[in-house]
Amino acid sequence: MPMLRKDPIAGRWVIIATERAKRPREYQVDTESLPSGFCPFCAGNEDSTPDPVAIYPKGADQDWSVRVIPNKFPALQTTGELTPHTEGVYEGLAGVGAHEVIIEAAEHVSDLAALPVDQIATVLRAWKDRINDLRNDERLECAVVFKNHGAAAGASLEHTHSQLIALPIIPKRLSEELVGSKRYYLAHDRCVYCDIVAQELDEGTRVVCSDDKVVALTPFASRFPFELWILPREHDPWYENSDDELFASVAAVLKRVLQKLNRALDSPPFNLMLHSAPFPDGDDVSHYHWHLELIPKLTKVAGFEWGTGFYINPTSPESAAEHLREIEID
Amino acid sequence: MPMLRKDPIAGRWVIIATERAKRPREYQVDTESLPSGFCPFCAGNEDSTPDPVAIYPKGADQDWSVRVIPNKFPALQTTGELTPHTEGVYEGLAGVGAHEVIIEAAEHVSDLAALPVDQIATVLRAWKDRINDLRNDERLECAVVFKNHGAAAGASLEHTHSQLIALPIIPKRLSEELVGSKRYYLAHDRCVYCDIVAQELDEGTRVVCSDDKVVALTPFASRFPFELWILPREHDPWYENSDDELFASVAAVLKRVLQKLNRALDSPPFNLMLHSAPFPDGDDVSHYHWHLELIPKLTKVAGFEWGTGFYINPTSPESAAEHLREIEID
Repeated sequence: MPMLRKDPIAGRWVIIATERAKRPREYQVDTESLPSGFCPFCAGNEDSTPDPVAIYPKGADQDWSVRVIPNKFPALQTTGELTPHTEGVYEGLAGVGAHEVIIEAAEHVSDLAALPVDQIATVLRAWKDRINDLRNDERLECAVVFKNHGAAAGASLEHTHSQLIALPIIPKRLSEELVGSKRYYLAHDRCVYCDIVAQELDEGTRVVCSDDKVVALTPFASRFPFELWILPREHDPWYENSDDELFASVAAVLKRVLQKLNRALDSPPFNLMLHSAPFPDGDDVSHYHWHLELIPKLTKVAGFEWGTGFYINPTSPESAAEHLREIEID
Repeated sequence: MPMLRKDPIAGRWVIIATERAKRPREYQVDTESLPSGFCPFCAGNEDSTPDPVAIYPKGADQDWSVRVIPNKFPALQTTGELTPHTEGVYEGLAGVGAHEVIIEAAEHVSDLAALPVDQIATVLRAWKDRINDLRNDERLECAVVFKNHGAAAGASLEHTHSQLIALPIIPKRLSEELVGSKRYYLAHDRCVYCDIVAQELDEGTRVVCSDDKVVALTPFASRFPFELWILPREHDPWYENSDDELFASVAAVLKRVLQKLNRALDSPPFNLMLHSAPFPDGDDVSHYHWHLELIPKLTKVAGFEWGTGFYINPTSPESAAEHLREIEID
């Protein structure tokens, strides 16, 4: 019998279709490749991208290991007033915001999982620094950091990189999570994410791996096969409050999870998204708990999903977690 | 300057990226093909699919023109109790519901737009009849009808068909639209969709085509390039209240819009979704207005969209509507 499951934060439902349950090897991974040839992100080609807004040097023999630049084709513009605009029933705003690219390695590496843990930790630190810098811009409400890996997941360049978009409004999904976690907090006097972490560690069936600071799990109401969340055990609404010790853990767990996915699913394309509380503006967001969400791109989102916001997932999170737990990483 | 626009019903924001505006020919249409060979949906092969729940004969020389069958691999099951299930912080339900397939032609036609208008109207009538039938099942709350055209849009068979899923809960997107249209109604004493139709017909820039009963337009806050909505001019929450005269108009406008998309964008894959009010249960939904939403599959949904529920659309709805208006259909 298929199961209907509800996400305890966003209230979104999914169908876990156990009848036609798929094992990892049954997914046909989209291997559409990205253009090779000249790479504007490689060390030595810095003059083909905008001047950096931040640089992280590794040692004396290298100019940089992580380089953050404004996106050459930004979705939003950094300059300008936040002019509102109405047109009958409609409302709009000038497209003010920031759109940056975090180049995650100087060498031409296409896979974040291939980088050493300390290099991944530097990337995580770069995200934090950029968020902290953009917090000072009074026009902006929050920053979204994400990574598209592989052409099928929307990447247009192969060289490993992530992106940051800072927005003058709080996006729908984040505000749903804020509302949902507040509702739970008012009812139970506890953080819903903390309760999830505790319950999952206790049950174990959906835990992929963990250490003393971080847990990687397949969420109960996974929208997609092999969807993964990485949550810090310690409650904090803001990612940018994290210290280097926590980043070392997140980096190690993220690398491990990506290596497991690569082995289980033939290096699938994926999207990785940071969910963190909006920039502080006096609103109480203490009930929120930052985390990372990772979606391997294995299925197609079709009419039912677009029409409903309701997902059909052909692999239960329990079976996905079990497959991933079984994969040994050296 | 890019523009931020807000959908007046669901409150979702989009970025209309005018700086990197794309013309139709710049989209690379995914032409991934579907398996050919034996087709279980063709007339003559009826014994390879389940027994029909409805059949529409065309004339004396044909057994059927539209045939509705239970999905052989249903996402939900028709039999069983709606047993709730809790597990710590989590809630679930047994996966009870209906999942049917509407085979839209007896011959092996892959494109709905290739069918005559009266045949498309029969398909629309079949949707109505199936919804009316499923309304009698007290376990169910609403029906979602959708169509996936082309492999990239999630279709697995080429023969033109749509699907119906009836659900024991109201899906998120529909409940957002119900909340949004109610909010607007309480503030303005009018239906937001009726106001949109009036404003769009008055302005004209986002109208693709229309007749005296139906309007096809590109929505102000289009999430996707060439996204289209088809709305009846006359207010009605329920699709299944429509009469044959209205279906004749919807069929003609839908066919025209699909023909225009085929010419403008090289027969793109698309998803078509019916949005109609939930089954009547005493709740006031008189403020809702049924409509169709059509999304050609031209761009990839990536990390930013998954992380935020916020879309970046590289073609403004005004420019999409203009391109589509200019295409002449014989």
